[in-house]
Amino acid sequence: MRDLEVPLRFHPLGRTVHVLPGTRLSEAAAIAGLPLEMPCGGEGTCGKCRVVMRPAPEPTPAEARLLSPDELARGVRLACQHVAENELDVEVPRSSLAGHECRILAGSHTEVPEPTDPPVRKVFVQLPPPHRGDDVADLARLQRAVGPLEADLDLLRQLPARLRQCQFRGTAVVEASRLLDFEPGDTRAHGCALAVDLGTTTLVAALVELATGDQRAVTSRLNPQTTCGDDVLSRILYAQRPGGLHELQQRIASAVDEMIGELAENAGIRREAIYTVAVSGNTTMQQLFCGVDPQCLGQVPFVPATSDAIQAPAATVGLHIHPRGRVYVLPVIGGFVGGDTVAGILSTRLTASPRPALLVDIGTNGEIVVWTGQRLLAASTAAGPAFEGARISQGMRASVGAIEKVVLRDGDLHLNVIGNAPPVGLCGSALIDAAAELLRAGVLTPEGRLLTHDQLPVHTPEPLRRRLLADNGKPAVVLAWESDSGHGRAVTLTQRDLRELQLASGAIRAGIAILLKRAGLSPADLDTVLLAGAFGNFIRRSNAQRIGLLPGEVPRQRIRFVGNTSLAGARWTAISLAARQQAHCLARQTEHVDLSSDPDFHATFARSMIFPQGASSS
Amino acid sequence: MRDLEVPLRFHPLGRTVHVLPGTRLSEAAAIAGLPLEMPCGGEGTCGKCRVVMRPAPEPTPAEARLLSPDELARGVRLACQHVAENELDVEVPRSSLAGHECRILAGSHTEVPEPTDPPVRKVFVQLPPPHRGDDVADLARLQRAVGPLEADLDLLRQLPARLRQCQFRGTAVVEASRLLDFEPGDTRAHGCALAVDLGTTTLVAALVELATGDQRAVTSRLNPQTTCGDDVLSRILYAQRPGGLHELQQRIASAVDEMIGELAENAGIRREAIYTVAVSGNTTMQQLFCGVDPQCLGQVPFVPATSDAIQAPAATVGLHIHPRGRVYVLPVIGGFVGGDTVAGILSTRLTASPRPALLVDIGTNGEIVVWTGQRLLAASTAAGPAFEGARISQGMRASVGAIEKVVLRDGDLHLNVIGNAPPVGLCGSALIDAAAELLRAGVLTPEGRLLTHDQLPVHTPEPLRRRLLADNGKPAVVLAWESDSGHGRAVTLTQRDLRELQLASGAIRAGIAILLKRAGLSPADLDTVLLAGAFGNFIRRSNAQRIGLLPGEVPRQRIRFVGNTSLAGARWTAISLAARQQAHCLARQTEHVDLSSDPDFHATFARSMIFPQGASSS
Repeated sequence: MRDLEVPLRFHPLGRTVHVLPGTRLSEAAAIAGLPLEMPCGGEGTCGKCRVVMRPAPEPTPAEARLLSPDELARGVRLACQHVAENELDVEVPRSSLAGHECRILAGSHTEVPEPTDPPVRKVFVQLPPPHRGDDVADLARLQRAVGPLEADLDLLRQLPARLRQCQFRGTAVVEASRLLDFEPGDTRAHGCALAVDLGTTTLVAALVELATGDQRAVTSRLNPQTTCGDDVLSRILYAQRPGGLHELQQRIASAVDEMIGELAENAGIRREAIYTVAVSGNTTMQQLFCGVDPQCLGQVPFVPATSDAIQAPAATVGLHIHPRGRVYVLPVIGGFVGGDTVAGILSTRLTASPRPALLVDIGTNGEIVVWTGQRLLAASTAAGPAFEGARISQGMRASVGAIEKVVLRDGDLHLNVIGNAPPVGLCGSALIDAAAELLRAGVLTPEGRLLTHDQLPVHTPEPLRRRLLADNGKPAVVLAWESDSGHGRAVTLTQRDLRELQLASGAIRAGIAILLKRAGLSPADLDTVLLAGAFGNFIRRSNAQRIGLLPGEVPRQRIRFVGNTSLAGARWTAISLAARQQAHCLARQTEHVDLSSDPDFHATFARSMIFPQGASSS
Repeated sequence: MRDLEVPLRFHPLGRTVHVLPGTRLSEAAAIAGLPLEMPCGGEGTCGKCRVVMRPAPEPTPAEARLLSPDELARGVRLACQHVAENELDVEVPRSSLAGHECRILAGSHTEVPEPTDPPVRKVFVQLPPPHRGDDVADLARLQRAVGPLEADLDLLRQLPARLRQCQFRGTAVVEASRLLDFEPGDTRAHGCALAVDLGTTTLVAALVELATGDQRAVTSRLNPQTTCGDDVLSRILYAQRPGGLHELQQRIASAVDEMIGELAENAGIRREAIYTVAVSGNTTMQQLFCGVDPQCLGQVPFVPATSDAIQAPAATVGLHIHPRGRVYVLPVIGGFVGGDTVAGILSTRLTASPRPALLVDIGTNGEIVVWTGQRLLAASTAAGPAFEGARISQGMRASVGAIEKVVLRDGDLHLNVIGNAPPVGLCGSALIDAAAELLRAGVLTPEGRLLTHDQLPVHTPEPLRRRLLADNGKPAVVLAWESDSGHGRAVTLTQRDLRELQLASGAIRAGIAILLKRAGLSPADLDTVLLAGAFGNFIRRSNAQRIGLLPGEVPRQRIRFVGNTSLAGARWTAISLAARQQAHCLARQTEHVDLSSDPDFHATFARSMIFPQGASSS
């Protein structure tokens, strides 16, 4: 398939990605690891996704309107306006990058938080040494320069010597009114915070500068709790075994602590230069991370231990950062709707517009939020890990070798593989793509049944027809033949995989339906639909609508991908006290809807398992 | 000497004390362990020191005025109005007792704090268990009943199970907005606080009820740091040795922890039922207790690590109380003027009257406070441990066997011994008494020289003359002959002992003089002189004035003994948040005067070493 693809060289990374012709440059940039600022959702109206293209194509009308003649002459174009056709060099200026600071997640709202109120701040002081006419206590001397301060006893024990060692010239590290440390000399430029997204399946951690909010490094890994169960309910059950809670806590905390080591090394800092950690996850993940038994979350009426933010010394959860550094775990809304959802509402500024909006965070637990313009409603739905590649026969996470895109063109399926490697499996976006294309081709019925050769529509093209197998009498579709794969076996999509997709997609679709009903809205009322989740950026909106994951009634340009909003919200709260305050308010303000107690839930869920009729697709 | 004494039986204790004829009943009651309420200072004007005397003497005019005919008929009399003459039964009603609550220290101000705002409060709740229509988080459920709460992670981990074990019916233990514990059932009646006075020489601890402020038990012991040096400067030096600070911290903390065990056993409670500890001491003692190196206190300009109150988990200083219980160490004023002085200002309500007042706390470190009606000034002076019996050849603490009073009558010295035991030494009050009586008899010169036989005034009575010895050529006075003593040796007072007294008394007298000068006051301006210190109640005012320890210009009725105000202030802050707030304000409001930097200090100190001329004595 490689010969079909178009190579694009992205700068400044110097990375070449191979994409199918017709792929938008903005999407290709994201695949290259350079997600672009695109608050208008790629409509060519905001002019923010500027790149320099060589060779530069003819400007589109939108570009002629938004770019200056000088820019046009230099080859500046908007990445949302062009698709890959031929080999190309693309230079991405820093100002167009989402990802730096919190902009990737700003949605339609361009205002972004500045780290003017970090939870841990540094104040450089040069204090007059004590003398007979000025004999105030050491801490009081520091308070005169810094403001009200309390010091933990262990630090107070060191303070007199510390002050004198550096001749009263040093940097106070302050968390709220708590003195965290006193460092010799001016260390204001140094100091980091950590943001952690505790996914049921995937852990992501980002190291950011406290002073600027800039991201220094990011890493992710599989949640090592997955061997104890692949969804939250199985983890809750595991926690009830003798030693189970302890094991789950240890596993997740050790993994985060290892990521801290890795991030610190990559950024060239000491662990002790990390002063605060903000943690976001669903309620179960947050409780397990804190070592709080989630037993009561596993039974009606699904009660968390607390809905407030948890703050605790990092050491008490097993993280090694600054010795007096603390973790902040986001507040939860209720039931399974946890800090990750609060983080999503926060970082997308969902409530900033008075118009109705929907936020869908697709993960092993799907979270759905409806903003009516006045009320916030949120629910959690057990989508299962299908979108993260689990429970799919050849599913995998969105990493090198994963088929991430499937396109039906010229009668056959064409693939894009992450890292341009030979495919070894498929990730969630390819699952959606494949199902959508098979529905369009009439090879998959709305009820989710994969047709056999004798049942296929007569116009089914031959290449596609060849891909349909009956594996032990069970129908399957070959995505990659064994000769093209990275492991010598064909990569197939089975009937059972499609059933898993129906369950996962149906759970979310039913959740959306019930939440909209409770909010008194119909899908057409929605001004914006935000799709969050680590793999969101890879999903094609039309396909998500085709399989019914997102409401078909919503015009496509209103759907936007906002990436990993759980991590984004953790980043906000890692560097801003105002964000923590806002998280608290949002968590309290949001009405928790327990879907399973809705009288219509079962009927709605059953209906939602059926893929929409073709008329509603594009 | 026993035959001279009069036995008084005190009820309800049933304790008999033997006192010299002429001893006031109020003083005898204090010796019996029943200190009386006496806000008027024993002037017969307040009518608070009611006791029942059998046989009852004729009522005095004051009693006729203050007591009802019925009371008089029942034998009710005022203890301040009568002296011991014959054998007597004295019943002390509870309402006359100082010591219960904080009244012992209320001075002239009758308003006393009620524990309406204890730092740790208990709230009994019966919560509706969660159900589908009410699925708020566990902590939020508790918050609905109790108000804003935070929970330490270790408690949060236990909370869900705790709540369900007692069917959501239990008692929240709350410190400020921090949930300290959740106990099954209604435990409001149970719960204690501890108040600790960290004296340089003596440690005292009192266990009080959180709910009522009532004292449950009290104990004291020698500060085990004394083997590392008997004053604060030697302790500071000791702390500079390798391991010295650690040893000093361990010694004092272990002693306090042992006292906790003893008090808990005496009161029949578990250590874990103590939720908070308030600690008062001079700056050095407080820092050593907290494990903070006092090195900077040992050199000009004598800088404490902090002047704020220190709050820390009890376990971090080595105390074993409730696992989440904290210690509160009082704020300090500056230099050596520590929390004990703040406690004194607080518990005597020194600033409640607009008229000038002096507070003198006599201990190994003497603390002096002047209230001008608008300004508070405080200083510390190194009196040394003479008043606590140290550095005196046969000195001892005010415990059984200590001569506590010396009276010159009928030409000879008469003694009172604590516990009516044969004497084995003398305590501070006897030292003052003896010096005053010897000065009056002309046997001791104002310069502090004990005359030899050939130098004695001609009228010196023979019995007194016989008591004067030249021990190895050094003059000494026999207080108790070897035949009367408890250890078969004579109890003597040496020339060297009197020099120690001169130093101790002179240091305090000089401090008072300089502080009054700074305040723009003369001794005659003082409306009240409060004498604090554990042994204060045993001192005779006339003798304290005779030796110059207290200014002779102050009319005697203005001098009042207020007992251990350091412990009293610790008790206030152990049971009242308002008291903690007030302590903070008083500490900040008080001007710290460094005596040694006063240009007049050396001259004043030298002058103060001279005992006043007889004219000023009574």
